[in-house]
Amino acid sequence: MKTTRSVLADQATDFPRWFQDVITKAELADNGPVRGTMVVRPYGYGIWELLQEAMNRRIKATGAENAYFPLLIPESYLRREAEHVAGFSPELAVVTHAGGKELEEPAVVRPTSETMIGEYMAKWVQSYRDLPLLLNQWANVVRWELRPRLFLRTTEFLWQEGHTAHATEEDARAYATRILTEVYRDVMVNLLAIPVLAGRKTRRERFAGAINTMTLEAMTGDGKALQLGTAHELGQNFSRAFDIGYLSREGRRELAWTTSWGSTTRLVGGMIMVHGDNAGLRVPPAVAPVQVVVLAVKDETISAARAIATDLEAAGLRVTLDDRVDQPFGRRAVNWELKGVPIRIELGPRDLAANAATVVRRLRANGKSTVGLADLVSTVTRAIDDDQVHLLAEASARQAERITPVTTVDDAVEAASSGWASLPYATLGEEGEDRLGESGITVRCLQRPDGSLPIGDNEPDLIAYVARSY
Amino acid sequence: MKTTRSVLADQATDFPRWFQDVITKAELADNGPVRGTMVVRPYGYGIWELLQEAMNRRIKATGAENAYFPLLIPESYLRREAEHVAGFSPELAVVTHAGGKELEEPAVVRPTSETMIGEYMAKWVQSYRDLPLLLNQWANVVRWELRPRLFLRTTEFLWQEGHTAHATEEDARAYATRILTEVYRDVMVNLLAIPVLAGRKTRRERFAGAINTMTLEAMTGDGKALQLGTAHELGQNFSRAFDIGYLSREGRRELAWTTSWGSTTRLVGGMIMVHGDNAGLRVPPAVAPVQVVVLAVKDETISAARAIATDLEAAGLRVTLDDRVDQPFGRRAVNWELKGVPIRIELGPRDLAANAATVVRRLRANGKSTVGLADLVSTVTRAIDDDQVHLLAEASARQAERITPVTTVDDAVEAASSGWASLPYATLGEEGEDRLGESGITVRCLQRPDGSLPIGDNEPDLIAYVARSY
Repeated sequence: MKTTRSVLADQATDFPRWFQDVITKAELADNGPVRGTMVVRPYGYGIWELLQEAMNRRIKATGAENAYFPLLIPESYLRREAEHVAGFSPELAVVTHAGGKELEEPAVVRPTSETMIGEYMAKWVQSYRDLPLLLNQWANVVRWELRPRLFLRTTEFLWQEGHTAHATEEDARAYATRILTEVYRDVMVNLLAIPVLAGRKTRRERFAGAINTMTLEAMTGDGKALQLGTAHELGQNFSRAFDIGYLSREGRRELAWTTSWGSTTRLVGGMIMVHGDNAGLRVPPAVAPVQVVVLAVKDETISAARAIATDLEAAGLRVTLDDRVDQPFGRRAVNWELKGVPIRIELGPRDLAANAATVVRRLRANGKSTVGLADLVSTVTRAIDDDQVHLLAEASARQAERITPVTTVDDAVEAASSGWASLPYATLGEEGEDRLGESGITVRCLQRPDGSLPIGDNEPDLIAYVARSY
Repeated sequence: MKTTRSVLADQATDFPRWFQDVITKAELADNGPVRGTMVVRPYGYGIWELLQEAMNRRIKATGAENAYFPLLIPESYLRREAEHVAGFSPELAVVTHAGGKELEEPAVVRPTSETMIGEYMAKWVQSYRDLPLLLNQWANVVRWELRPRLFLRTTEFLWQEGHTAHATEEDARAYATRILTEVYRDVMVNLLAIPVLAGRKTRRERFAGAINTMTLEAMTGDGKALQLGTAHELGQNFSRAFDIGYLSREGRRELAWTTSWGSTTRLVGGMIMVHGDNAGLRVPPAVAPVQVVVLAVKDETISAARAIATDLEAAGLRVTLDDRVDQPFGRRAVNWELKGVPIRIELGPRDLAANAATVVRRLRANGKSTVGLADLVSTVTRAIDDDQVHLLAEASARQAERITPVTTVDDAVEAASSGWASLPYATLGEEGEDRLGESGITVRCLQRPDGSLPIGDNEPDLIAYVARSY
């Protein structure tokens, strides 16, 4: 079978270049004209839409409501929380002129909305009855990136950002944890087929203004780490800065405890980096805009191919008919392979004469077989389900294989040259974190020995997962 | 029955003030901190989400695909189409600094994306096989408004903008017309219950850079006009400016014909202005985030109220249970009335003893009745359907009543003081348009005598609809 190796850089030789190649050749996205920006093309956006829909449903199930806050934030808002402004200042894009005049106060294009939403939470929250206040928005944000990379780190990106206010620290923590595990992890594992480690960030890796950042970390095809979603406990830092107070049941004025959490178009980048191979994308069926493509090989098989496509659609699958018989068949097949469509059905005159079709499963090695037309719908439906599970199992096995338990910082540096290392956080400490940093390695997250999320920084026996990252 | 008249300005006395009041009191939206911006609160956003979903489905049914283009446009792009830049220049917000430095070329925050998308269409379109190219995006845009008004004219607003390229002028026109009628008008009429006039704009009212703008115009409660959606034929203006060319079937290089079309959060403003009354909003069931609210009057009716809510939800309705029995019942009822929830079910101890509930239909005069619990689901389901139809009929009758056919410009000015006027466009002409303008009146649209859309500016017998507008 032909492959598209010729048009893509080799994964093993130059993974970042392969990543850029596959994005443009599979028509997921293009570079925008302003440095670091991205044009998301219909095929890439189709994946994002399916993710968005799944994420949105789960977010609503936790009780949060969608709203929309302005893009432009008065510069003074950002200054109210000291760590926050320090963290975001270098990345801000600033509107200084509008309507033909210089603005009295410059407006920042939101890099994130804690400050904007904090201001309104302060107005809307009066009493304990108004808590918890659970808000989410789907929006674009702008962060001026030094080293932009399509989908992973773009100057503008799309995301959802959740912002909540709670009466107690416990309630805030429980909610942020629920978002991390029931919403984000569920989507990553069960839709994107990406195994992720859930853990706590060290102090230096925290979100600017948070008292705790919880993260989900995926392993890329080249053994690096990719942060795919975070949920932050903001303590009372923003409540204090924006005066988000409430009258308690006992009639005392208290400060609320807030959280924020976000997941972005980076999820699409994660999917590419975790599952892609030298022939191109491999898209998990659950987020595939096209789950099955039916290729008519010749003119005389078009009508039968269309009938097959109709049957598969009726079975609830997302199907595309490729009837461009005036174009070389090989090139069409390779192109669908590049695009990572899970199932390709090829219908040629000989197939049709044998009352059969050729089925190629993109997510399986040696995934080619001949299937009788009578069994086609059931075979394809089963394959779609099986391959979703298979893809996760495959990625999980690869991840487990490439995490090396070590006991010293030197060994961690060594192991992180080609994968992740795990070691006791006590062995590492803040000084060890410095030494890792010298080799471009960071602590991706801390976990308890049983894999659960630590509550404090100083719990005993914490395991640190360390790696290079995108 | 109590009303909320006390908290809202009177519609007849000060309609614009009533509009602002109802938006904030019903918790649809708040003013943002940067002048003219808007915070869309969950209740307002819930209406927008239902509209968006309906619009999105219809847009996709025409064959368009969603994509996403960058927010920031190089200033030079806008200058390439002369009329376009002239039209938008006064409204632009400009990012001059980013990442701590002054930018070499300032970036404009998109006011609309013809120029950005034109640049990419030129890359993606090579041959007649690539046409039509049908793209849509859901996005925010920024236009610095002199006289901002919540939902109607905000500095930032949410919208979808469609951009398409076609091989022929006829195909471009047919597609833009299809969007106007099958997508926009269908959503306005059948979801928002807003009767609209579809027509062609006069030359001076056209979109900057278009050769034809088609519009849908609604009548507000105070007899003015509100433009609710437009579709533009851009001719070859943008193809020429951005070099969107293709090789024809005959092997000749040709310029494409492009269109653009948009609908915005203004639709929510239209809903308020068309249907609202002195007691507050009246939300059409099809776009109501809450179609039915079940109020437990007393503690002892909570569990029965919850059972009713569950039954209604099971019947596919969007239902909220109001069990805040520690708060005054009258205030709660007035609040739901203010929010325009189509059906309110009140369950007091006496109702329960009689195995009945009180049903109040917000969209009907004297809409209060007692309904046996056994009939409740069927009665409410039927009422929801009937009231959707009723609301449109009511608005249509009001609109028809307030359009006065006249024959002179003076009579048109007179009639437009309290409604719309219609007159032969031949009587009016460009000079007549000037005279209307002196009284703050504009031609909203031109129609053929049979109500259909004119193709050219100079068709005989065109009817002009003129009015003051928001």
